[in-house]
Amino acid sequence: MSNVAVYGAGSWGSALSVVLANAGHQVALIGRHSDEMELIRKQRENARYLPGVVLPPGIQPTTDLTLLNAELVVFSVPSHSVRQAARLVKDYLKPGCIVVNTAKGMEEGSHLRLSEVLAEELPQNRIAVLSGPSHAEEVGRNMPTTVVVASDVETAKAVQDLMMTPEFRIYTNPDVIGVELGGALKNVIALCTGIAEGLGFGDNTKAALMTRGLAEIARLGVAQGGHPLTFAGLSGVGDLIVTCTSPHSRNRRAGVALGQGIPLDTVLKDVGMVVEGVKAARIAYQLSIEKDISMPITEQAYRVLFEGADPRIAVTDLMMRGKRHELEEIVELNWLN
Amino acid sequence: MSNVAVYGAGSWGSALSVVLANAGHQVALIGRHSDEMELIRKQRENARYLPGVVLPPGIQPTTDLTLLNAELVVFSVPSHSVRQAARLVKDYLKPGCIVVNTAKGMEEGSHLRLSEVLAEELPQNRIAVLSGPSHAEEVGRNMPTTVVVASDVETAKAVQDLMMTPEFRIYTNPDVIGVELGGALKNVIALCTGIAEGLGFGDNTKAALMTRGLAEIARLGVAQGGHPLTFAGLSGVGDLIVTCTSPHSRNRRAGVALGQGIPLDTVLKDVGMVVEGVKAARIAYQLSIEKDISMPITEQAYRVLFEGADPRIAVTDLMMRGKRHELEEIVELNWLN
Repeated sequence: MSNVAVYGAGSWGSALSVVLANAGHQVALIGRHSDEMELIRKQRENARYLPGVVLPPGIQPTTDLTLLNAELVVFSVPSHSVRQAARLVKDYLKPGCIVVNTAKGMEEGSHLRLSEVLAEELPQNRIAVLSGPSHAEEVGRNMPTTVVVASDVETAKAVQDLMMTPEFRIYTNPDVIGVELGGALKNVIALCTGIAEGLGFGDNTKAALMTRGLAEIARLGVAQGGHPLTFAGLSGVGDLIVTCTSPHSRNRRAGVALGQGIPLDTVLKDVGMVVEGVKAARIAYQLSIEKDISMPITEQAYRVLFEGADPRIAVTDLMMRGKRHELEEIVELNWLN
Repeated sequence: MSNVAVYGAGSWGSALSVVLANAGHQVALIGRHSDEMELIRKQRENARYLPGVVLPPGIQPTTDLTLLNAELVVFSVPSHSVRQAARLVKDYLKPGCIVVNTAKGMEEGSHLRLSEVLAEELPQNRIAVLSGPSHAEEVGRNMPTTVVVASDVETAKAVQDLMMTPEFRIYTNPDVIGVELGGALKNVIALCTGIAEGLGFGDNTKAALMTRGLAEIARLGVAQGGHPLTFAGLSGVGDLIVTCTSPHSRNRRAGVALGQGIPLDTVLKDVGMVVEGVKAARIAYQLSIEKDISMPITEQAYRVLFEGADPRIAVTDLMMRGKRHELEEIVELNWLN
């Protein structure tokens, strides 16, 4: 048993605090608003973000930042808040303690991965990344779930030892770059499959976009230093499947609305939350041009999102490309060497 | 424009005859029962297997085997009928003409891939394999669809030239082994995700089974001579996604019933059609033992199907395996070399 902390009391932070309590730890679930945390403490439920899940006794809902002085701290804030949150908590963290980031995305402007942001802000801590196909609603209910923890081997194994339970199976992977880029870029493809759905296309089209989308994510990821096979794993294709097929996914839902002809501004207002795929599409498109990498699906997403292109014509353009050989581009990229 | 033929007038054969007519060919859609084919000819619809799809004028529904004397023949019969059908049509085929097989599975007993069966029976013909995420109902309605044709490069390109349309995008791939094994083995994983669904597990568990299932399919496929990256393509992960998530999939539906505790005999009777994944699970399990390849999901499927194992305990066994490193087993297999 260890003292651990979860910073951020949204749905994912709350679900991971259940996992950590199941693993036998004393868990500080740290939020910002004292009234909200007090309510969670009294009700033993995060009724706003994770309704229906009873929090085990090992969880202490709190706003007390001194409880960040723990062996392991799970970071669960939106991707655009990661740098600011790191600055806020920095002085409370035990030097050498492991910080596990769970946000998915890249920093706007710098295009840094979020573990790079954390490494800049928290140079005294060991940074790990947790990703994979894992709806919070299901993890909170102890449904069998598998995830990946990426870091140096020693740190990743330490997280695996601390967090793995019979229902929450953790694989380690040393490829931090691949794991983070898969998690961030899959949201662009979820937007696109949503658009296809909104246009009235079927499962064949969605599967095509997911498969070819995975191929282009992997191309960019490999160019950035990721390992190609990470994209065939839980944080790649696994997370992509869940995000593209789930009715809960905000990225997918935003795509459906776009496919139905609703303008981006209205869609973002209606969803009312951050749609990570919109920001990720811009960053991925910029990177594909910088690195001269063919990303036809991302390019069409960019044109639909930011240049007012007609989504139906975008799909047609994708289908009308020249005749291709499935492994050709992979061979060109030396995936085989 | 060429004369082409489709042998087998089920849903997939009928849908592919629409594709070939759209590509500008004269298409003989050849079935066995003259009354059924006459009805299709009069109604311009295959009301039994592909209801709601109007057959374009270029399609001639017929039982006349002499029309097999064509430039390209699409073979669309159930996997267990492939050898017998090949013997039946052999003398009608033009020597050197391309036979495109669309059935997915392996021959029981011999464990041969179906293109090997065809090569044995039709030594004078060029054999190609068509696979990928493609519901017939959607292809018949001209929904954007992508597939793979596998054969030697020249034959695959010839099929691409003859069959590709704006809505039916064909990629070529020289890896016949990988394309065929992906198509056959994905049905085992669809059974397993169905079982998880029937047990009441959620999207996280299904995505885990699909991702780790893909990894073990690829392990067996590579041991049999397939290319690892084929399993990340349309005939691998693409077809897996469609089969595991579609309400139409017989394999998935059979799995759901098994997960709900209904015995295999009853399930097979209720589905009333061939469930390819049941046969494929037995063959895959036997091959995994012969080749000494770790296939934990297939093994549990075998135990549930043929040894009366409790599916809930099977899932628990999968989750309770030792701590693993995601890329380890891939590295062991020299995927990186």
